[in-house]
Amino acid sequence: MRTEMERGWLWLKGLSLRSLANVYEIYRQTTKIATDDPRKLIHSFKVGLTLTLVSFFYYFRPLYNSFGVSAMWAVMTVVVVFEFSVGATLGKGLNRGLATLVAGALGVGANHLASLAGKTSEPILIGLFVFIQATVSTFVRFVPRVKARYDYGMLIFILTFSLVSISGFRTDEILNLAQKRLSTILIGASTCVIVSICVCPVWAGEDLHNLIAGNVEKLGSFLEDLTAENFRPSEAAQTENGSSGVSVMSSLNSVLDSKSSEETLANFARWEPGHGRFMYRHPWKQYVKIGNLTRQCGRRVEALVNAYLHSKTQAAEEIRGTIQDAFSGMISESGKALKEVASAMETMSRPPSPDPHLANLKIAAVNLKSLLKSNFWEGYSNLSQVIRVAAVASLLIDIVVCVENIADAVKELSSMANFKCKDVNFRQVLVEIPSTVSHDEVKVEGRLSAEVGRQILNV
Amino acid sequence: MRTEMERGWLWLKGLSLRSLANVYEIYRQTTKIATDDPRKLIHSFKVGLTLTLVSFFYYFRPLYNSFGVSAMWAVMTVVVVFEFSVGATLGKGLNRGLATLVAGALGVGANHLASLAGKTSEPILIGLFVFIQATVSTFVRFVPRVKARYDYGMLIFILTFSLVSISGFRTDEILNLAQKRLSTILIGASTCVIVSICVCPVWAGEDLHNLIAGNVEKLGSFLEDLTAENFRPSEAAQTENGSSGVSVMSSLNSVLDSKSSEETLANFARWEPGHGRFMYRHPWKQYVKIGNLTRQCGRRVEALVNAYLHSKTQAAEEIRGTIQDAFSGMISESGKALKEVASAMETMSRPPSPDPHLANLKIAAVNLKSLLKSNFWEGYSNLSQVIRVAAVASLLIDIVVCVENIADAVKELSSMANFKCKDVNFRQVLVEIPSTVSHDEVKVEGRLSAEVGRQILNV
Repeated sequence: MRTEMERGWLWLKGLSLRSLANVYEIYRQTTKIATDDPRKLIHSFKVGLTLTLVSFFYYFRPLYNSFGVSAMWAVMTVVVVFEFSVGATLGKGLNRGLATLVAGALGVGANHLASLAGKTSEPILIGLFVFIQATVSTFVRFVPRVKARYDYGMLIFILTFSLVSISGFRTDEILNLAQKRLSTILIGASTCVIVSICVCPVWAGEDLHNLIAGNVEKLGSFLEDLTAENFRPSEAAQTENGSSGVSVMSSLNSVLDSKSSEETLANFARWEPGHGRFMYRHPWKQYVKIGNLTRQCGRRVEALVNAYLHSKTQAAEEIRGTIQDAFSGMISESGKALKEVASAMETMSRPPSPDPHLANLKIAAVNLKSLLKSNFWEGYSNLSQVIRVAAVASLLIDIVVCVENIADAVKELSSMANFKCKDVNFRQVLVEIPSTVSHDEVKVEGRLSAEVGRQILNV
Repeated sequence: MRTEMERGWLWLKGLSLRSLANVYEIYRQTTKIATDDPRKLIHSFKVGLTLTLVSFFYYFRPLYNSFGVSAMWAVMTVVVVFEFSVGATLGKGLNRGLATLVAGALGVGANHLASLAGKTSEPILIGLFVFIQATVSTFVRFVPRVKARYDYGMLIFILTFSLVSISGFRTDEILNLAQKRLSTILIGASTCVIVSICVCPVWAGEDLHNLIAGNVEKLGSFLEDLTAENFRPSEAAQTENGSSGVSVMSSLNSVLDSKSSEETLANFARWEPGHGRFMYRHPWKQYVKIGNLTRQCGRRVEALVNAYLHSKTQAAEEIRGTIQDAFSGMISESGKALKEVASAMETMSRPPSPDPHLANLKIAAVNLKSLLKSNFWEGYSNLSQVIRVAAVASLLIDIVVCVENIADAVKELSSMANFKCKDVNFRQVLVEIPSTVSHDEVKVEGRLSAEVGRQILNV
C-alpha cells in the first residue's frame, strides 16, 4: 500500500517536473524570439492596437448606427491583412480592396441578370454563375505569375462574388450591403496600412537588402575563418568535431537555404513605396540574382570543406609549405573580397574599382596555376596526397570565378540603383596663394580631380 | 492628314495584334498547366462544385430559415479552406473548426465577464481582452513549431475571439450567434473535406513519395546521360552550348531547388489518414531526410559537371584510356544504383540487399583509388591535365559515398514503413510425387526457401 502511494507520488512529481520543464521551454523559446528580433514583439503589439482601434465601430453608437454588423468586416480585414512587413500588408490590402471592388460590382451585376429571368430560374442561374466563376478563378490561381502576386486577390474575388451574388437572393438591399461591406473593408485595410507604415515599420525591401548583404558577408567570414582555424593541420580535427565547427557549418547552411525567403521578400518589396535609402522601383530582382550567385559560391565552398576537412584521408596534414601559403592566401583574399563587396552593399556605395582584393585574387589564381604546373609535388610521398591537393586547387580556382561573378553583379546593382561613389567626397577648399607664386608652381595633391584642382587655382 | 490617319491605323493594328498575342499567351499558359497536371483542372471543378453545394443554404427556404445570414460562414469556409491536397484541406479544416470552437467559448466567457462589470466599463474591459489576446496570439504565431502546423488555427482564433467578444456588446443572442456560426463553419469545412477525399483525391503524401523517388530517379538518369553523352570529348562542347545541355542542367536544378516544396508536402502529409499504399503515421520525416541527402549528392554532381564540362581548359579531351573507362563506369554505376533505389521506392519494395550496383561501385572506388596510386599520369603531357583528372576522381569518390548514404536512408525507410520484400513471392505449389520416388531423390530448385520446400515435400 505504501509503495503504491510512493509510486503515485513519484509519478506526480515527475509529471509536475516535466510540465514545469515544458513551461520553461516555451518561456525560453518565446524570450529567444523576442530578443533575437524585437520587431516581432512590436508587430504583435501593433496588431493588438489596430484591432482595438477598429473595434471602436462597435462601441460607439454613432459609428455602429451607420455601419451595423458590417463593421465585422473591418475586424476580419485587420486580422487577415496585417502582416509582418509593410510590403506584405500593402500587397494584401490592395489585393483585398481591389478584388472586393471588382467582385462586388460583378456580383451585383450577376444578381441583377439572374433576377430578370424570373423567380424559378433565379437560383439556377446564380448557382451556375458561382460555379463557373469559382472554377475559372481557382484555375487562374495556378498560373505562376498570378500565384506570386495576386493569389490573395483571387481568393477574395471568389469569396466576394459568391457572397454578394448569393446574398442578393435573400435581401433586396444588395447595393446598400455591398457598399457598406466595401467601405468597412477599405477602412480596415487602410488602418492596417497606416499603422504598419507609421508605427515602427518593417520594410521587406530593407530586410531583403540586409539579408543578401549579410549572406555575402557570412560567406566572406566563413572563408576567413577557414584560413584562420581550419587550415592549420593541428586544429583541423579538433574543429571538425568540436562545437565551433558545427556552428560555422550552420552559418554556411543558412546561406545555402535562404532561396525561398529571398524570393518572398523580393515579391513583398515590389509593393513598397520608397523608404529610407530605397526608392520606389529599386532593382529588387538584381538582389535575387546576387542571392543565387552567392548560393552558387556557397556550394563550391561547401565542396571545398568536404574535399578538405571531412575527407577520411587526413588531408590537412598533406598541405604544407608553399602550397599551404598559396591556398590560405587565396581563401583569405576571397573572404576579404566578399566582405568588401558586402560592406559596399551595406553602405550602398559603389564597390571600389579596381578592387585590390579582386586584383590580388586574379594574380593568386594565375600563380596557383603556374605553381601547379611546376614540380610542386616533389615533397609528397604518394599520389593520393597530390590528388587531394589538386582537388582543393581546382575548387579554389572555381571559387575565385564565383567571387568575381558576385562582385560583377553587385557592381551592376550599384549602377542600377545609383549607389553613391565612395571616393567622390570633394569639399571646395579656398586656398590663399601668395601673389608672388605663379600658377605653375602650385601642386595639387591628394584625391582631387583635375577639374576641382583647376577650380581652386582659378579662385 | 493622311499620314496621321495611317499612323493611327498602324498603331491600332499594332495594339490589336499585341493584345491578340497576349490572349494567345495566356491561353497557351493555361492549356500547358491543364495538360501538365490535369488534377489542377479537376481541383478547380471540385471547388466550383463544393461552393455551389454549400450555396443551397441560401436557395432553400427551410435551410435558410434555420441558419439565416450565418450561412455566409459556410461559403467563406469553403473558399478559404479548400486546398489542392487532402492534407492541406484537412489541416486547414481541423485548424479552423477547433480554433472556432475554443475561441468562441473563450469569447462568450470574456463577454460575460465584461458584462458583469457594468455598462460603462464593459467596452473598456472587452477592448483590453481583445488587445491582450491579439498581441499574445500574434506573437505565438512566430514560434516555428506553431507556424509550421497551427498558423491558420491561430489566425482563426484571433478572428473568432475578437468577433464573438465584440459582437456580444451589441447583441444579446450571443450564444445563439456563436452556435450558428460554429455549425455553419463545421458544415462548410466537412463538405470541403468530403469532396476533397471522395472526388479524385490529391494526396500530399503520395505527391511527396513520388517527388522524392522522382528526384532520386532524375539524379540517376542525369548521371547516366552524363556517361552516354558528355564523357565523349567530341560531343561535350556541343552539349554544353546546345539546348539539350541546358534542359539536362535544368533537371538537376529542379532537384536542387525542391527543398521547400518537400517540407511543405511533408507538413501536409502528416494530416492525412491512411490512403492507398500509405498508412496513417507513415514515416514522412524520413522522406525529407532522403530529399536532403539527394540534394547533397546533387551538389556534388553539379560540382563534377562544373569541374568537368564547364572548365575553360578543355578537360574532356584530357580524359582518355583507362581513366575514361574507370570514370564512365563509376558514373554509370552510380546512376544505375540510384535508379535501382528509386524504383524500389516507387514500387515500395525493399531495395535488393546486397545491391549489385552498389557492390560494383564500392569495387570501382577501390580500383580508382589504386589506379590513381599507380603511374597513370604517364600518358599526360603536363600536370594541369593530371590535376583536372584528379579533381574529377576526388569528386567521383565523394559521389559514391553520397549514393551509399541515399541507399542506406531508403533501406531505413523501407524497414520503417514495412515495405514488402520483392523476392519473397512464394506460392504454395502442390507437387505430386510418384510413391516410388523417395523424398531424398526430389530436388527443390528455384527461389523456394528451405521451409517452403520442406512443406511441399511433406504434403
